[in-house]
Amino acid sequence: MSGYQHRVAGKRLNRLDGIGKVTGKHVYAADFALPGMLFGKILRSSEPHARIRRLDVAKARALPGVRTVLTASDIPAIRFGTAIKDRSVFADGVVRFRGEAIAAVAATSLEIAEAAVRAIEIEYEPLPAVFDPEEALTSGAPLVHAGWSDYQALPVFDREGNVSGRAELGGGDVEAGFAQSYRIYEHRFTTQHVHPGYTEPRSAIASWDGNGDVIVWCNTQLPFDMKNMLAEVLDLPASKVRVIVPGIGGGFGGKLRVGVEHFAAWLARASKRPVKVMTTSEEELTDAYPRQPTIVTLRTGVSRDGLLLARQGRVLLDCGAYANSGPATAAIALQVLAGPYRTPHLAFESVAVYTNKGSTGSFRAPAGPMANFAVESQMDLIADNLGIDPLEFRLRNVYREGDKGPAGETLTSVSIEECLRKAADAIGWHDRRPAHGRGKGIACSWWLTTGGSSGVYVKINPDGSVTLVSGAVELGSGAITGAAQILAEELGVDLADVNVAEVDTHSSPYDYGAQGSRTAFSVGNACIAAAKDLRRQIGELMAAQWQVPIDSVRLEEKSVISGDKRMSLAEVASLSQRSGGGLISHGTAIQPMPVFDPSKVKNHPLPAWTSHSFHAHAVDLSVDQVTGEVSIHRYVVAQDVGYAINPTYIEGQIEGGVAQGIGQTLSEEIVYDQGRVMNANLTDYKMPTTMDMPRVECILVEKPGVNGPYGAKGVGEPPCIQPPAAIANAIAVASGVRVCSLPITAEKIALERLDRAAD
Amino acid sequence: MSGYQHRVAGKRLNRLDGIGKVTGKHVYAADFALPGMLFGKILRSSEPHARIRRLDVAKARALPGVRTVLTASDIPAIRFGTAIKDRSVFADGVVRFRGEAIAAVAATSLEIAEAAVRAIEIEYEPLPAVFDPEEALTSGAPLVHAGWSDYQALPVFDREGNVSGRAELGGGDVEAGFAQSYRIYEHRFTTQHVHPGYTEPRSAIASWDGNGDVIVWCNTQLPFDMKNMLAEVLDLPASKVRVIVPGIGGGFGGKLRVGVEHFAAWLARASKRPVKVMTTSEEELTDAYPRQPTIVTLRTGVSRDGLLLARQGRVLLDCGAYANSGPATAAIALQVLAGPYRTPHLAFESVAVYTNKGSTGSFRAPAGPMANFAVESQMDLIADNLGIDPLEFRLRNVYREGDKGPAGETLTSVSIEECLRKAADAIGWHDRRPAHGRGKGIACSWWLTTGGSSGVYVKINPDGSVTLVSGAVELGSGAITGAAQILAEELGVDLADVNVAEVDTHSSPYDYGAQGSRTAFSVGNACIAAAKDLRRQIGELMAAQWQVPIDSVRLEEKSVISGDKRMSLAEVASLSQRSGGGLISHGTAIQPMPVFDPSKVKNHPLPAWTSHSFHAHAVDLSVDQVTGEVSIHRYVVAQDVGYAINPTYIEGQIEGGVAQGIGQTLSEEIVYDQGRVMNANLTDYKMPTTMDMPRVECILVEKPGVNGPYGAKGVGEPPCIQPPAAIANAIAVASGVRVCSLPITAEKIALERLDRAAD
Repeated sequence: MSGYQHRVAGKRLNRLDGIGKVTGKHVYAADFALPGMLFGKILRSSEPHARIRRLDVAKARALPGVRTVLTASDIPAIRFGTAIKDRSVFADGVVRFRGEAIAAVAATSLEIAEAAVRAIEIEYEPLPAVFDPEEALTSGAPLVHAGWSDYQALPVFDREGNVSGRAELGGGDVEAGFAQSYRIYEHRFTTQHVHPGYTEPRSAIASWDGNGDVIVWCNTQLPFDMKNMLAEVLDLPASKVRVIVPGIGGGFGGKLRVGVEHFAAWLARASKRPVKVMTTSEEELTDAYPRQPTIVTLRTGVSRDGLLLARQGRVLLDCGAYANSGPATAAIALQVLAGPYRTPHLAFESVAVYTNKGSTGSFRAPAGPMANFAVESQMDLIADNLGIDPLEFRLRNVYREGDKGPAGETLTSVSIEECLRKAADAIGWHDRRPAHGRGKGIACSWWLTTGGSSGVYVKINPDGSVTLVSGAVELGSGAITGAAQILAEELGVDLADVNVAEVDTHSSPYDYGAQGSRTAFSVGNACIAAAKDLRRQIGELMAAQWQVPIDSVRLEEKSVISGDKRMSLAEVASLSQRSGGGLISHGTAIQPMPVFDPSKVKNHPLPAWTSHSFHAHAVDLSVDQVTGEVSIHRYVVAQDVGYAINPTYIEGQIEGGVAQGIGQTLSEEIVYDQGRVMNANLTDYKMPTTMDMPRVECILVEKPGVNGPYGAKGVGEPPCIQPPAAIANAIAVASGVRVCSLPITAEKIALERLDRAAD
Repeated sequence: MSGYQHRVAGKRLNRLDGIGKVTGKHVYAADFALPGMLFGKILRSSEPHARIRRLDVAKARALPGVRTVLTASDIPAIRFGTAIKDRSVFADGVVRFRGEAIAAVAATSLEIAEAAVRAIEIEYEPLPAVFDPEEALTSGAPLVHAGWSDYQALPVFDREGNVSGRAELGGGDVEAGFAQSYRIYEHRFTTQHVHPGYTEPRSAIASWDGNGDVIVWCNTQLPFDMKNMLAEVLDLPASKVRVIVPGIGGGFGGKLRVGVEHFAAWLARASKRPVKVMTTSEEELTDAYPRQPTIVTLRTGVSRDGLLLARQGRVLLDCGAYANSGPATAAIALQVLAGPYRTPHLAFESVAVYTNKGSTGSFRAPAGPMANFAVESQMDLIADNLGIDPLEFRLRNVYREGDKGPAGETLTSVSIEECLRKAADAIGWHDRRPAHGRGKGIACSWWLTTGGSSGVYVKINPDGSVTLVSGAVELGSGAITGAAQILAEELGVDLADVNVAEVDTHSSPYDYGAQGSRTAFSVGNACIAAAKDLRRQIGELMAAQWQVPIDSVRLEEKSVISGDKRMSLAEVASLSQRSGGGLISHGTAIQPMPVFDPSKVKNHPLPAWTSHSFHAHAVDLSVDQVTGEVSIHRYVVAQDVGYAINPTYIEGQIEGGVAQGIGQTLSEEIVYDQGRVMNANLTDYKMPTTMDMPRVECILVEKPGVNGPYGAKGVGEPPCIQPPAAIANAIAVASGVRVCSLPITAEKIALERLDRAAD
């Protein structure tokens, strides 16, 4: 498209879902209701690890208004799960974390359902529990899953005892690298459980029809995956399950997997009525898919002139009681740990372990902040020790165009130097310590755009409007508006001419789902393919109609033109409908996988990254010298987005990601004590508010990628990767205190200062 | 497909929508409800023609629970309509029939809405009215639409005063034909208002979103047309209107046009809440789309040896107060009047007129029974007069392969002789008067398969199931099951593997709608096109995967095969999803229009028929010699269906059509007196019950047509065309009484016998 001025793509246009959302008219899944529906509630374990000795639901069943009470004995013993099929709908005789589902109730009101849950009688026989991931690795540790070896699992994972997956990434000869090194540094970093913090609780309504088919209206990010997961859990062919997403109020990876859908479906099946199940804040903080805690150890050898020679590292990731995406997340951490730096000798290992805590999942940029916190904190520690400016140290080591990545893949469209320099310039890097108690920090990273295929149907209607049917949900990021901008651009119409249908696995083409920064990228590519086919149809139709060569027919500003002949696009669509079914097409897109060196990876589910992006964050903050409180003055993000499809929404993504990153860095933590969540409410679980947010300055770098629409790269996940390291680095400058465990609370800073003063 | 044994098509398989319907789980539009919805009711005129002098809604608005009261002054003055834009949402200051909508109310309960309707104060100034269609043609008759000449109308219609449309069909020199004739016969036949009798009332729920878009869940037969009609009525671009059909409990042409949808949409817009409007039986019998009454005069000249030489005829059709499809229906009557007989000289005219009665519409085989009652009654009258057996008389005159039709089109796949002989054989024609008071009658006809385009999306899912997304609704005929059988046949899967999505104008491809016997025919053709594209995709995918020639790849019994390589269709679909978006296609179909002679038609909207079919009915009945009561012993239908996609559902269509035909013939009539419906309830409006039904013997003739899938022809409408004539002819044989006006009630027969006895 070089030299061509876009009309719609690249513009700051209002999002298609905007008015409905700001006026409160938009129906989210949590708003959705069906006449005559029942309300479902879940009985959850009060023990972290125990055998269920007695479970008596008689009193609950007898309550007026209660229609159904279900326990494990009422449904087939089916195990499901992402990496490992280790989970059941209800605890299978053994509970493995406090908060695990044991029974479910459907009643005519929520109050009755809650009373029925309280009326269920249960006795436990406690079992030894393990909460610490390092302890879980020891030989005498209690097994979270005694029968782990019988579970079905994806073959890629290397499992044993409490280890749900182990992966490796590396190359060269790391011992030789250390031997050549001028200095060697070793550090340990820890991170915490963080909830995705979507504003809409997880919610599902299920309703069965007379054919034994179930429709589930829910707020999943992955309708097609949900269809398959539910089919597995319900012991049905996938064709019997239909998933509709009315609307979704944020997901951030927390709505990828079954949450309440399976409970709603089983309860509705048993009660022969629609059933709605929605989470409370307490349930969100005890049984959801938060970011996993990690312990990252990193050993780095450098040359005298500040070049990285060798790195050895281990990511220990605490999955909680069920593996879910933990083994894959731990593996992905290794790429984040490796990049964006040239390192001749690498030896990284990931270990995902079970503990008797709540399950975890793939929160926005899974593994990103944890691994980046380690590598980018250490980069500053090394630079300081070597006496090299941290920016300069990074610039000496970052990837260059054409370099090989950690799995041997060729890196293209490399923009890390540009991102670093722009972020540093904007924050005023030349003056890193502008005042006492004030400092600036920088951190950078790289990230992938997740692959998977996307299909779209596109209709040009006889009124000239365009309907886009995609299987990808609009999470709130504006990604579908971005895809629609590309479609409008390709068809020569306005964004306002494009309507988007809601996702229904029955009527929508397949999409790999709203995950992994892929939506605008992949749906946009599918739109380009669909538009190309529509232009072909229009060319053939009008060439025949006008008796002109096909090549002479072109589409321009809602008209079809050949020589001095012209017909409005609406009229052409109408003509096509009258003469042959209308202007309708199907477009599809999939990202090619890069070529990589299989000897550099082991047991890794995602060995090489597609369509990687680069980004750097810089922050200017003060630390209160007494209380340790951090005040962020300015926050700058320079992110390579390849091509900014809609700069406004990309900036929105960056601002939101930085907010989540600041939360993870400074205040958020699901606090466990002996397997009990001590702050299972939104008063004690401290997410930043708008009052805590600095203005985020966004610099959109546009170095076109090879696979994305008009060169676009995935933009959604990266913004929450670097805040922990950038802020930690700035805090170290401002306060002299280096904190290597998240969150970096004011208490930690203050206590560390007191300790050092006492030394 | 000659020589190939079908696996799925042609089989008596259970319909896809069957279990849901017989278990009561299927959600019809009338069942559909939204939480928080209001209930709408309509104030209707008590006068047949009057000016509204005063309309005061203040008391209605003040009732607790009333949210909205709307009259013509609250909404834009928009006229809409099918042939002529002569109708408004609410009476435009003048009411033109008793039952016309004047105001609408939305309230929190149906009872409150009804009370509010009663609380509206109204004063009328009566205007002269006209009820008789012949009187409406006289020069001094009151004009139903004083401003008729200002209305927008389709240009094809020739209009004047109370005449909403006039058309002609003919050729040769009819006066010369009469001059050559041995005998000339002239008769007059009349038919009545008949309600389609769908079991589900018309129902709509409208809900507006924050973008100013409206979703309407309703039971329309034509979702895409409804979208356009509503856009017009609501003064919106069509892209702002979305129509979803959850399910529809019969239509028979009575659910083609706006019925309650526009009221629901306006009320919902004003009250900012979803609003449901559903008809009562009284509303159905006063303001719906019943079959139009007609007066048919037919003059026929024959040769001495019983060959038709010339025919002159006029169809006068009473549209009621609004034209709707009346002018077109009257015109279509001319083809029915002409066929299926060779007639060298033809001169037919249709006249559609306004009267101050309820509006009318396109009931199953519009014009068919009325015109066929005339022509086939007269055929018996002529045969009797000539002393020729009525079957023999017909056989001398019927169309032969390659004949020209009335508009000069070439007739192919002509099977009328076969249909007549099979029906006659089955009824035992050799013995037409088996007992005193008992007789047999026969009648035959031809009919078209309506054109228009159909599009489908088809997905082969990774579990091997197939999803069909069509814009055509399943009316209850089984037509969508028929289309799905064709799809399953083409893809080598089972019918049970096919899922059909509900129709949603947003996500479904365009379809011309469930009308005109076209659904299985046209959607089936679109499925063939989609399957062809899927086979191409599968061929390309597996040729690349297996490194074999594309031509060697074939689809067989849910597997893809090339030489000794084999992969299940499910695995291929999964491979395609992982490598390129999945096996998804779009298929489209449209019927070609036949070539015709434009000099033979004038002002005719449907000058030549596509994909015509032929059929004959024979009946054996007794007439009580005292009461005139008719008892039908046997009823035989021989219908050329081209190819029987699913014999069971075709037989169901035939049985249902015969039932409706028997109702029209013997008992059903919306009785008007001075513009008032005297029997606006289902006790006094007498539809036949199962107790009134004979066993219908179906003979499916399969002479393949050129356009339909596997040679299929449209089957839905023809079965209700011939019952009036076949039964009238049998009554004449059994009782000696010839009744030329429908319905042929026992009273008419008995009175006629008394008259004749008195002569």
